[in-house]
Amino acid sequence: MEGYNYLLSLCVILMSTKIFSILSRRAQLPQVVGALMAGLFFGPAVLGAITESLFGVRFCLMPTQLLSRMAELGVIVIMFTAGMETNIDELKASGKVGFVVALLGVFFPLGMGAAVMYVFDPKVTFQSAIFVGAVLTATSVSITVEALKELGKMSTKVGNTILAAALIDDILGLICLTVVTGIGGGDMNLPLVFAKIAGFFVFVGVMGLVYNKAMKWSDRVQAERNLRRYPVMGFALCLFMAWAAEVLFGVADIIGAFAAGMIIAISPKGQYIASKFDTIAYLLLTPVFFANIGLEVTLPEFSSDVLLFTVAIVVVSIISKLFGCGLGAMVCGFDKRQSYQIGLGMVCRGEVALIVAGKGVSMNLIAEEDLGPIIIMIIVCTIITPIFLKRAFEGQTDIAGDTMFEEKFMLGEQTDEIEEDIFHRRSLLHQQTYGGE
Amino acid sequence: MEGYNYLLSLCVILMSTKIFSILSRRAQLPQVVGALMAGLFFGPAVLGAITESLFGVRFCLMPTQLLSRMAELGVIVIMFTAGMETNIDELKASGKVGFVVALLGVFFPLGMGAAVMYVFDPKVTFQSAIFVGAVLTATSVSITVEALKELGKMSTKVGNTILAAALIDDILGLICLTVVTGIGGGDMNLPLVFAKIAGFFVFVGVMGLVYNKAMKWSDRVQAERNLRRYPVMGFALCLFMAWAAEVLFGVADIIGAFAAGMIIAISPKGQYIASKFDTIAYLLLTPVFFANIGLEVTLPEFSSDVLLFTVAIVVVSIISKLFGCGLGAMVCGFDKRQSYQIGLGMVCRGEVALIVAGKGVSMNLIAEEDLGPIIIMIIVCTIITPIFLKRAFEGQTDIAGDTMFEEKFMLGEQTDEIEEDIFHRRSLLHQQTYGGE
Repeated sequence: MEGYNYLLSLCVILMSTKIFSILSRRAQLPQVVGALMAGLFFGPAVLGAITESLFGVRFCLMPTQLLSRMAELGVIVIMFTAGMETNIDELKASGKVGFVVALLGVFFPLGMGAAVMYVFDPKVTFQSAIFVGAVLTATSVSITVEALKELGKMSTKVGNTILAAALIDDILGLICLTVVTGIGGGDMNLPLVFAKIAGFFVFVGVMGLVYNKAMKWSDRVQAERNLRRYPVMGFALCLFMAWAAEVLFGVADIIGAFAAGMIIAISPKGQYIASKFDTIAYLLLTPVFFANIGLEVTLPEFSSDVLLFTVAIVVVSIISKLFGCGLGAMVCGFDKRQSYQIGLGMVCRGEVALIVAGKGVSMNLIAEEDLGPIIIMIIVCTIITPIFLKRAFEGQTDIAGDTMFEEKFMLGEQTDEIEEDIFHRRSLLHQQTYGGE
Repeated sequence: MEGYNYLLSLCVILMSTKIFSILSRRAQLPQVVGALMAGLFFGPAVLGAITESLFGVRFCLMPTQLLSRMAELGVIVIMFTAGMETNIDELKASGKVGFVVALLGVFFPLGMGAAVMYVFDPKVTFQSAIFVGAVLTATSVSITVEALKELGKMSTKVGNTILAAALIDDILGLICLTVVTGIGGGDMNLPLVFAKIAGFFVFVGVMGLVYNKAMKWSDRVQAERNLRRYPVMGFALCLFMAWAAEVLFGVADIIGAFAAGMIIAISPKGQYIASKFDTIAYLLLTPVFFANIGLEVTLPEFSSDVLLFTVAIVVVSIISKLFGCGLGAMVCGFDKRQSYQIGLGMVCRGEVALIVAGKGVSMNLIAEEDLGPIIIMIIVCTIITPIFLKRAFEGQTDIAGDTMFEEKFMLGEQTDEIEEDIFHRRSLLHQQTYGGE
């Protein structure tokens, strides 16, 4: 019977993320916050703690291997759709700016994170201090992307800059991690890392050419009119590139998925393929992803020392990204408000920071009692980013942006109406067809 | 790096099932056969055996827990959509007929299966013989449903009879299994089993009322126009009922999912919800389900005795269902051809038979060397059912059926065109919106 409990877990995750999302929208918060809250509520941090103190039993929806894998698939699909929605010309235009933003956004957290460690424990080793700094560098762009999509700001200059910076940030963070693990005792092979990253870019180019050719060939030869093969092949490309990025090139899988999305965006039937992943995302994978983040959190026991350290690390993680990336944006000519928006969009941390922290613990470079504060830092950054992003974009004087949002909203409504129309027509035809039987 | 291989497995499964499906359609076979073949090819039975004999290494896409769970979700979604597509009035009309068909379709395989065991091993115990018979009783309706959908025959009288019979067959099979495991040493509590089954029907009625009320309330109060909550809540209902069926009532999870589908079909926005599950099914879950069946197969070593027994069990499993169910259909007034179609639709075996056989082995009632032939029986039944079903419906003189098929086919085309039209409009609006930026 145990084997069927994942069905109930999935059911609770779907219902609670939806209900919490609706509630948080009513409260003028981004839906993403609601989805995260749902995960937190049903995780060991809240429900587990409540039931333990009340009944002496620790009850919560435990993350099984299935749920965490489906959450991984969720991140991959989110990044894949983000790639499909990326305006490549805009991204190219934002590339240089993104690099400056990302570079300062890695430098400040690295330095300030290490500094906090020295303040709280003057006898800390250089490696340990710099490793905690490295944990703070990894921006998790997926939540920012979801929030920006919801606000209709994904295709703005600010949105593209954040995306470009986050992508470059991932690569810089990777180099950073390689260096610190290298210093920390592993074998550091910096030329190999660079060669692999270069190889990945070549790989993306080759895959783009091959996929494009294959799709054009398929367009020519197909006798019957069957569109299903396009989304299926597109998804296969996404999965392959995510796997290859991680396993063959040592780059994060989500970067591979994002690159696959960009390839599809400029290939035949790109728009059609993009439209199909909306459903699979909101109906299954995205709720699981958000809930899973909350489910993985267990709160540490608190002393005043731990509390102080937690506050310090949270504040530093926010300030350092906000200031570092904002400064980068300002240097590149963005105005004050835009720089604030960009800095804010980069504050969000996520699974990468968790993974780096876990690696630090296993290498004995991060103390186990520091893991709790780091997890709280990730949650706080994840929750405040979409909230403040929404505020930062609210009442924006930039008229083009507002119009765009309105029109996108109306477009959504219109599509719903057209969809309803189709189902009406379909059911009419169905009645005509079977009615007489 | 191991942890990322499921991405590659998923990629290969998506690509190979799609390519094999296209090929099998070119060869005038149902696409389902192609999807199954793809799984078989990449499983231990073919690719594993080839690489082992050539290179001494057993290479194949192993079914991980993730893939098998996703395959389970796939079955649940297939049965859920089948439920949403069920014409309840038709099913009611087919209920009595379905019962007769199911009853004879359980009786014949049970008796003939046991008889085969006595022929091949006269010293076999009664329990063992009857257990092998029980393995032969469980019809797997999901593949027949997929094949009938593909042929556009799901909503015909024959289709509804097969569905009704298969559903009742599941319940009869359950009782049958309870009895034989009871005889075989477990505790038999027949009244409890019947009470639970009755309880399940009450549960379905209550859930139907609750869901209907909740949806009508939601329809009334919702201020903004957001349709996404409907598919999400529908899927949550499906998962909950699948879980409850299995864990609370001891009925198969797919019966719960099917009942949830029927509830949604008669609730507000039912048509809209149904349309959303097509994508999630063909893009992720259905390919995994079909591939997983093939992946789980390992062929046994063959002696002439085993071969003879295999042939006998395969022939008996086909004949007994075909004859038993066909006889039932004839008794109820179907003509010869329709009775053949119904009998054929019930031949398909699947995961339930596998589960029962596994249980028999663990209870020492089925010898391990008999498991191979049983697996082969399941595969043969699974592959020939859709092939012969297609032939059985081909060139059907029944004109209503043909017209229906044509119209459904054209409707499918039309929907594709409307979809393309939407995406064209959408991209135009997109250009108008962002073009000026």
